[in-house]
Amino acid sequence: MSRIASEAAFLGLIDRHFPRRHGAVPLHRGDDAAVLDLPGRICLTADLFLEDAHFRRAYFTPGDIGYKALAVNLSDLAAMGASPLGFALVLTTPSDADADFWDGVFAGMAELADALDLPLVGGDLNRGPSVALAVTAWGGPGPSGRFLRRGQGRPGDALFLVGEVGLAAVGLAVLEASGRDAVAAWPVATTAHLRPAVRVEAGLALAAVPGLRGAMDVSDGLAADLPRFLAPGVGADIRLDPSWLHPEVVAHAASRGLDPAEAAFSGGEDYALLGAVAPEALPDLLRAVPSARVIGAVTAAPGIILNGRPVTGRGFDHFESSPCSS
Amino acid sequence: MSRIASEAAFLGLIDRHFPRRHGAVPLHRGDDAAVLDLPGRICLTADLFLEDAHFRRAYFTPGDIGYKALAVNLSDLAAMGASPLGFALVLTTPSDADADFWDGVFAGMAELADALDLPLVGGDLNRGPSVALAVTAWGGPGPSGRFLRRGQGRPGDALFLVGEVGLAAVGLAVLEASGRDAVAAWPVATTAHLRPAVRVEAGLALAAVPGLRGAMDVSDGLAADLPRFLAPGVGADIRLDPSWLHPEVVAHAASRGLDPAEAAFSGGEDYALLGAVAPEALPDLLRAVPSARVIGAVTAAPGIILNGRPVTGRGFDHFESSPCSS
Repeated sequence: MSRIASEAAFLGLIDRHFPRRHGAVPLHRGDDAAVLDLPGRICLTADLFLEDAHFRRAYFTPGDIGYKALAVNLSDLAAMGASPLGFALVLTTPSDADADFWDGVFAGMAELADALDLPLVGGDLNRGPSVALAVTAWGGPGPSGRFLRRGQGRPGDALFLVGEVGLAAVGLAVLEASGRDAVAAWPVATTAHLRPAVRVEAGLALAAVPGLRGAMDVSDGLAADLPRFLAPGVGADIRLDPSWLHPEVVAHAASRGLDPAEAAFSGGEDYALLGAVAPEALPDLLRAVPSARVIGAVTAAPGIILNGRPVTGRGFDHFESSPCSS
Repeated sequence: MSRIASEAAFLGLIDRHFPRRHGAVPLHRGDDAAVLDLPGRICLTADLFLEDAHFRRAYFTPGDIGYKALAVNLSDLAAMGASPLGFALVLTTPSDADADFWDGVFAGMAELADALDLPLVGGDLNRGPSVALAVTAWGGPGPSGRFLRRGQGRPGDALFLVGEVGLAAVGLAVLEASGRDAVAAWPVATTAHLRPAVRVEAGLALAAVPGLRGAMDVSDGLAADLPRFLAPGVGADIRLDPSWLHPEVVAHAASRGLDPAEAAFSGGEDYALLGAVAPEALPDLLRAVPSARVIGAVTAAPGIILNGRPVTGRGFDHFESSPCSS
C-alpha cells in the first residue's frame, strides 16, 4: 500500500491519466478556475457516485468505479441528445484508499474520457469518510442543434428503448449475493451493472430524427422513470415480451419465481434511453437507430399498463433506499 | 425533528428557496440535464464543503453552511475577474440532518445566490455518512472581456491584497476553542470564518485595470498560496505591518505570544484577493479598487521575504490536514 502523501502527489497521479491540454480549454486545471470555450447553449448535469450507496469496493474494481462515476453523467447528456464536451471531478478519499486504488480509478475514468476526447478541467480533492466521486459534465448540441427533453410525448406516440432493461438489476443482485464470483456466471448482467454502456452516438442520432419528441435515460427503472418521462395527464401502454428480454434477465427471474417482464420493468441502473416518437416518424427512427425497440405507446388516459395489467407500484427511489442496501 | 421522507420532499424544499426560472436557463432542474445559455468563453470551478473537514455543525448555523459552501466557489470566480452566472449542487445528508436543518442551509445559500441573481440549475441528492455540499459554479467575463490568472507577475510588479489576512484563522481557532460563544468576543474574526466576503465586484474591477497582471484568492493562507501565485523562478518581498492587520488578529497573536504578521501570513480561509500589478498602473488600481493594499513586490530572485526575513515554512495543505483537525 502506498498512501497518498500530499495534494501534490495526488495531482501528479491525475496528471498522468488526464493530460492538461485540449483545444477548447484555454486555461486548464491548476488556477482558481478553468477557462472553457463552449457553444453558446450547453447542457450540464452533476451526479454523485458514492461508496456503499452506488457501488461497493468489494466487487467493483477501481477501474469500474472510475468508469461508472463518469458514465452515469455522460448517460444524462446522451439522453439530452448532447455531444459531451468536458467534466469536473470532486472526490473524497478515506485513509484506506491508496495510490494504487486511485491509479485504477483514474485509468477507468480516462478510458471513457479519452474515447470521447473529454478534458477533465478541474475539481477538488479531500480526505473524507468514504470513496465519493461527484462529476459535473456538460455537452453541446449535435448536428441537429437541439436537445431532447422529457414530457413531450403525445397520445399515440410510440415509446421505445435503446438498450436493455432489468439487466443491471440482475447484475446488482448476483454481485451482492456472490461478489466478484458472479461475473463468470452472469457476464452480461454484471457488466451492465459495473460498466454500463454510454449511448452518446444513439442520443445524437435520436436528436436528428425530426419526429422525435423527447428522451431520457432510465436510471431508476422504467417503473420509476416512465412517470417522470410522461407529460402530466397522459399514460402509457407498455408491452415487454419475455422474448425481447436478455436471457440472463429471464433466467434470473425464473430462479426467483418472478415474472421476467415485471422484474425488467422495475430494475434500475441500465441507463437505456427511453424515447417517444411520432408514429409517422417510426421508419426514420428505425433507420437512424436500428437497435431501438418499440415497447408501447403514449395513451390519452393517465396510468401505466404493463402487458395488459395496470401498474400500481412505483420503482426505485435512489434517495430513499440505495441499491446496495436494498 | 422532521425527517426528510423522500426525494420529492427534498426537491420541494429546494424549490421553495431556488425558483426554477431564469432568463439564461431555457431548461431548468428536473430533466436529465439543465440547458444553459452562456457566453462562448466561461470559467468554471468546483469545490467540496465537507463536515468536519471544512466546517462543524457545532458552531456553523445551517445558514452559515449553505452560505459558505457557495461562497468559496464564487470566490474562485471573483479571483478570475469573472461575473458568476450559475451553479449546480451535489449533496449528501446523514440521517440526523432533518428538514429544518436543510431549510436553513438552503436559506443561507439562497441569500447569496439571490444577491447575485444566480440560478441553481441542477444537481444530485443522496444519503451519506456526513453533510457534504459539492458546488460547481461558472461565470462569464465582465466588461473587460478577460479573465485573470496566476503566474503572471513580473519582477518589479507590486503585490496587493483586497481583504484581510489572518482573520478567518483567528475565527477558526476561537470557534474550535469556545464554540459559538466565541462570536461575541471575536465578532469580526468569527464572521470571517463563518461567512467570508465574496469579492465579485472587486474582481470585476481588477480585470478592468489594463496593467493588472493577475489575481487569485487566498484560500490556504499567503504562505501556501503566494508560491502558487508566483511564476516559476521569481520571488516576493512582502511587508505586513501590524498596523495594517485587523485588531482581532493582533490581539489574538498577542494572547498566544505569536508574531502577528507571521500569524497573518500563515492563516487560511480569508478569501482575500491577491494580485500583481505593473508599477505604472498602481494609480489606476487604487482608483478602481480603493480598498486594495500594496503588500510588497515581485522579485527577480526566487524565495519569499516577509518583513525582511526569508520564509522557510509552508502554509496550510487542505488535503493533508483539515482546518478542523489542526
